[in-house]
Amino acid sequence: MKKLRVGIEGGAGFTGGELIRLLLAHPKVEIAAATSSTFPGQPVFLAHPNLRGRTNLTFTRKLDYKDLDVLFLAGGHGDAMAEVPAIVAQAGSKLRIIDLSGDFRLKDQSLYPAWYAREHKAPALLKKFAYGLVELNREEIKKAKWIANPGCFATATALALGPLAKGGVGGVVSVTAITGSSGSGASASPITHHPTRHANLKAYKPFTHQHIPEIEQILESLAGKKGLRLSLVPISGPFARGIYAVCQVDLPKGWTAAQVKELFASAYKGSEFVRLVPEPPSLNAVNGSNHCDVFVTVQEGRICVISAIDNLVKGASGQAVQNLNVMMGWNEAVGLEFAGHYP
Amino acid sequence: MKKLRVGIEGGAGFTGGELIRLLLAHPKVEIAAATSSTFPGQPVFLAHPNLRGRTNLTFTRKLDYKDLDVLFLAGGHGDAMAEVPAIVAQAGSKLRIIDLSGDFRLKDQSLYPAWYAREHKAPALLKKFAYGLVELNREEIKKAKWIANPGCFATATALALGPLAKGGVGGVVSVTAITGSSGSGASASPITHHPTRHANLKAYKPFTHQHIPEIEQILESLAGKKGLRLSLVPISGPFARGIYAVCQVDLPKGWTAAQVKELFASAYKGSEFVRLVPEPPSLNAVNGSNHCDVFVTVQEGRICVISAIDNLVKGASGQAVQNLNVMMGWNEAVGLEFAGHYP
Amino acid sequence: MKKLRVGIEGGAGFTGGELIRLLLAHPKVEIAAATSSTFPGQPVFLAHPNLRGRTNLTFTRKLDYKDLDVLFLAGGHGDAMAEVPAIVAQAGSKLRIIDLSGDFRLKDQSLYPAWYAREHKAPALLKKFAYGLVELNREEIKKAKWIANPGCFATATALALGPLAKGGVGGVVSVTAITGSSGSGASASPITHHPTRHANLKAYKPFTHQHIPEIEQILESLAGKKGLRLSLVPISGPFARGIYAVCQVDLPKGWTAAQVKELFASAYKGSEFVRLVPEPPSLNAVNGSNHCDVFVTVQEGRICVISAIDNLVKGASGQAVQNLNVMMGWNEAVGLEFAGHYP
Amino acid sequence: MKKLRVGIEGGAGFTGGELIRLLLAHPKVEIAAATSSTFPGQPVFLAHPNLRGRTNLTFTRKLDYKDLDVLFLAGGHGDAMAEVPAIVAQAGSKLRIIDLSGDFRLKDQSLYPAWYAREHKAPALLKKFAYGLVELNREEIKKAKWIANPGCFATATALALGPLAKGGVGGVVSVTAITGSSGSGASASPITHHPTRHANLKAYKPFTHQHIPEIEQILESLAGKKGLRLSLVPISGPFARGIYAVCQVDLPKGWTAAQVKELFASAYKGSEFVRLVPEPPSLNAVNGSNHCDVFVTVQEGRICVISAIDNLVKGASGQAVQNLNVMMGWNEAVGLEFAGHYP
Repeated sequence: MKKLRVGIEGGAGFTGGELIRLLLAHPKVEIAAATSSTFPGQPVFLAHPNLRGRTNLTFTRKLDYKDLDVLFLAGGHGDAMAEVPAIVAQAGSKLRIIDLSGDFRLKDQSLYPAWYAREHKAPALLKKFAYGLVELNREEIKKAKWIANPGCFATATALALGPLAKGGVGGVVSVTAITGSSGSGASASPITHHPTRHANLKAYKPFTHQHIPEIEQILESLAGKKGLRLSLVPISGPFARGIYAVCQVDLPKGWTAAQVKELFASAYKGSEFVRLVPEPPSLNAVNGSNHCDVFVTVQEGRICVISAIDNLVKGASGQAVQNLNVMMGWNEAVGLEFAGHYP
Repeated sequence: MKKLRVGIEGGAGFTGGELIRLLLAHPKVEIAAATSSTFPGQPVFLAHPNLRGRTNLTFTRKLDYKDLDVLFLAGGHGDAMAEVPAIVAQAGSKLRIIDLSGDFRLKDQSLYPAWYAREHKAPALLKKFAYGLVELNREEIKKAKWIANPGCFATATALALGPLAKGGVGGVVSVTAITGSSGSGASASPITHHPTRHANLKAYKPFTHQHIPEIEQILESLAGKKGLRLSLVPISGPFARGIYAVCQVDLPKGWTAAQVKELFASAYKGSEFVRLVPEPPSLNAVNGSNHCDVFVTVQEGRICVISAIDNLVKGASGQAVQNLNVMMGWNEAVGLEFAGHYP
Repeated sequence: MKKLRVGIEGGAGFTGGELIRLLLAHPKVEIAAATSSTFPGQPVFLAHPNLRGRTNLTFTRKLDYKDLDVLFLAGGHGDAMAEVPAIVAQAGSKLRIIDLSGDFRLKDQSLYPAWYAREHKAPALLKKFAYGLVELNREEIKKAKWIANPGCFATATALALGPLAKGGVGGVVSVTAITGSSGSGASASPITHHPTRHANLKAYKPFTHQHIPEIEQILESLAGKKGLRLSLVPISGPFARGIYAVCQVDLPKGWTAAQVKELFASAYKGSEFVRLVPEPPSLNAVNGSNHCDVFVTVQEGRICVISAIDNLVKGASGQAVQNLNVMMGWNEAVGLEFAGHYP
Repeated sequence: MKKLRVGIEGGAGFTGGELIRLLLAHPKVEIAAATSSTFPGQPVFLAHPNLRGRTNLTFTRKLDYKDLDVLFLAGGHGDAMAEVPAIVAQAGSKLRIIDLSGDFRLKDQSLYPAWYAREHKAPALLKKFAYGLVELNREEIKKAKWIANPGCFATATALALGPLAKGGVGGVVSVTAITGSSGSGASASPITHHPTRHANLKAYKPFTHQHIPEIEQILESLAGKKGLRLSLVPISGPFARGIYAVCQVDLPKGWTAAQVKELFASAYKGSEFVRLVPEPPSLNAVNGSNHCDVFVTVQEGRICVISAIDNLVKGASGQAVQNLNVMMGWNEAVGLEFAGHYP
């Protein structure tokens, strides 16, 4: 069978590296090219030393979009909205696109200035991108050609709250979500300086993180109305991989714990990557895999849902591959049927 | 000036080691003896290698209570309630006691079976212990002879919420609090097994942690009525020291952010160990010191308060020394005027 | 094609978990059963939460050896030597065995009391086990039916020094090797207590680690005589996975750096799991994979060789699978062609 | 008693922060000023959040050297050699100087181009600086006015090897030394990027680290001749603080273990900061303190010496204060009589 030819724009970052690693092992795909402005002409393993000996691929400076069936955009936020119109003009309408940035996640262009501090450059395209959170939006993704891959906090939080929203639970939900340092990317910066990140915790952007509107958007779409309102405090954690989201909300009057748990069981039936677990999850049970572990407990009028993902796999590149699979009509787990290592 | 003679029961644990370290540097105190059932007759530095060369003290098996001015109880939960009646009988009423366990923190004996899974063995003494959270209960401590030193989660959370309770804020407060592994003590156990604790997060006892009632008790006493209700999810974090508590609650109708901040400014005026910080705190700014850093923000009808402490200092032994200072009428910072190291 | 039926004795430990994870993805193998004395009758994912949803296997208490083509022994040191004679008696001579313990690594039974503090219980079998360090002993393994899988320190150190030994370099080699905590197994103990293992380093067994004789044995066999003498200091490191071995030895008189490097190039030609790297290796480039990265430098009369492996993969279970592949005449990389994740 | 007025050039770095922290608690010293080019006019606690509430000091842009009794230079390597001549011209000969950089450590100016990649700018001053490794050079320091504070690797390694050199042990010594990330300073860089530094090890500059010549210089001066030759491999470790040096060398013919141990006992008699420990040391027993723990073992013709220090205290700022104390004729432990916290 002829393999699908995929290209990766921004292959030298952490999500780019994960994409290459996953796609190298994907049986239905071949990597046509991956770009890097830092390492053009150089072996992929210079940026991703884990891949030494596993691929001879070298980074290119540019992609030939006409040569591709699928394009993954793994560059910085703001790049995709600037480039997609020209890419589409050049490649024609057959090119499928999966964008890992935040550029096409929000349907409402008016949200961009507030949350991303920039006007959107291609607002006409916003509604053409499906929001790629498979377990909560599978049917739209099946029919999509362009996909906006969710943010890492959004993935963990929306998977924790989606069944509640769908089931009609409303109110303010308090979320504390702790992230590993790889979420900040491959370039050194003060917030990832090892001496001060090590053994430390530090909250940032309380109530103002840019993933909030995409979470509220998917929850609202599941609820069919404004329902859960998100009150999110992100924390920088002292580990490299993982997002751990702790969500608390009032139990609606008259509801039982069993009702709440049934919402989760039914929402995730048939979704092999979401595992409902009987005790609070652990990052080390999901890291390295495309799984999201979700735990639910109800006590004294309160619901607590805790979710754990690998921010670079289910929170980015693994989810991008899952989106590809669904969009292509393949089994959504192709190339993703691996467990991470433990411990 | 004659130094106060203090004894430590349970000197080989982590809180015992911190007490010894702090008291060795305290100008008004001398350590008469410290017990250990594991290391009797052996040098203190076998349990606490940081103290090698800094003290010649050896552990004893028992204390001579009559020889002491002050007794610190740093043994396991459940020991103090069993021993205090006999200790008092033997030592007479002049002996001051600071208990670091949970045994005398709750005024209401009926709470012990529910939260500590045991009947209280000395309920008549419960009301004789002052709750030793200095910044929120200083006046009672000044007059006390027996003090129940707060739990580590309780310290961080109550310092974050005390000013709100005092100011009349009510409602359900969502707390996510992340703790370092030293909070589990000096003995190896599955939850502190390095391969699985490393780079991991794992919640435990959601809504059921035993520090909840002591937090609600002090908040209620500050509010003068049942006010804030605690919805606490503790998390085991991949670091050795520190507690980081993120608290969220609705802003009362009609209140302003300035009003909220003023509650904190006025509550902690003159309390040098609580530092109000203008951005979210970091563990590495407080670890090794008796400080609690507290951050407050108010946005869109929500209050977020974040506090950070060293669980073994402000959350245990440093606070015990601070209680001693207040009880003795000394400057409460004597022997505690040090910064931790950074990073 | 009929798959090979394999059994695992000791499936609930860390090496057992890695074996199960690797064998589940191996195209030529099916897991017939895995034992655990702690979790008999219970799902494998209770011990290895990463495997939840990836296998329905439950642990058994015992194996039916006659039902197996291959047996992996992943229990404690000392168990294999006690059990193998009875296993063989029961299963007959067709059963292939790969022992991950130290019980059959040394050809000379007199070394066991000195290095393992016990007499060997089945000395007659010692010479029937091939030493399973594929890159240095491939031909013997191809013909073997029983294999002694090397120790983790031994793997890293022997791969660093094998080419030198083979090339005739002699003398005392100073080795400092740092290990992750997963090497101590899945049971909690004082040396893996998180509060004191975290952010710490501590050497142990300087010059007396039990992997020393197996390293000297394979080096001597490569040299054809006593050549390199090992002076090894192991260190407990503050991470979960990996072994990092730094080896230093005098450059023989008259030799050039190019000669030394040529020894490595020729020794590892065709060995895809050993990657010769142009700068000092990193644990995070090999962890999660079966690779060993090796770096060589020669300056001012000194040779420095540094090697890095994942102790649970190349240092244990991955190597066991590689041994299976070689023994069966398959491509040695079957089921092991994955990169670890980075970072 | 009038306190000594000290100034700090380069107060916003990690060593600058430690100096300020230590000097604030020093009973015989007051900090006149500390400079920062990044934070001029701003509170010291902006750079060092542990010091919030403990000092009102603000950084200045420049120092008034005439106003100082002692100047600590804690800026970058290369700055001191450029500035000291002008400082001395301005301040006159009474100003005492303790330089924490590498600029005045080597007596032989010809070594600078080879090891520091620059010509020395003030070679005439090199011999006027005493090498500030107190335990090995106390008498010279007592008489000095200008002191070159040793490097962190040099401190750990020279303290491990000094007694051997003094006792006449020669030959090549293999050293592997692992450092925490704080040794790289307060500015973010690729080698301290948390995602790739976390849980990783990576050697660098094998045999070529710039601390080698200062170690050989002090060892040669102790031996009275060229004796021990250093073969050093440094490793970047996944923790913030500490240096752990493992040294191996041949036991001279005819020597006994007791003789070797006696060298250490006699060399460090009366040196309270060097603790001879009966088992391999731990970073967490020395971190936060000015101690160096040293362990010696002799087996089968080999000597192994392992030392552990806090790179920012004994390896930098603590040692600088110790040098001040010795130079001033004070007890060398003044202001340094604290244990670090454990764990």
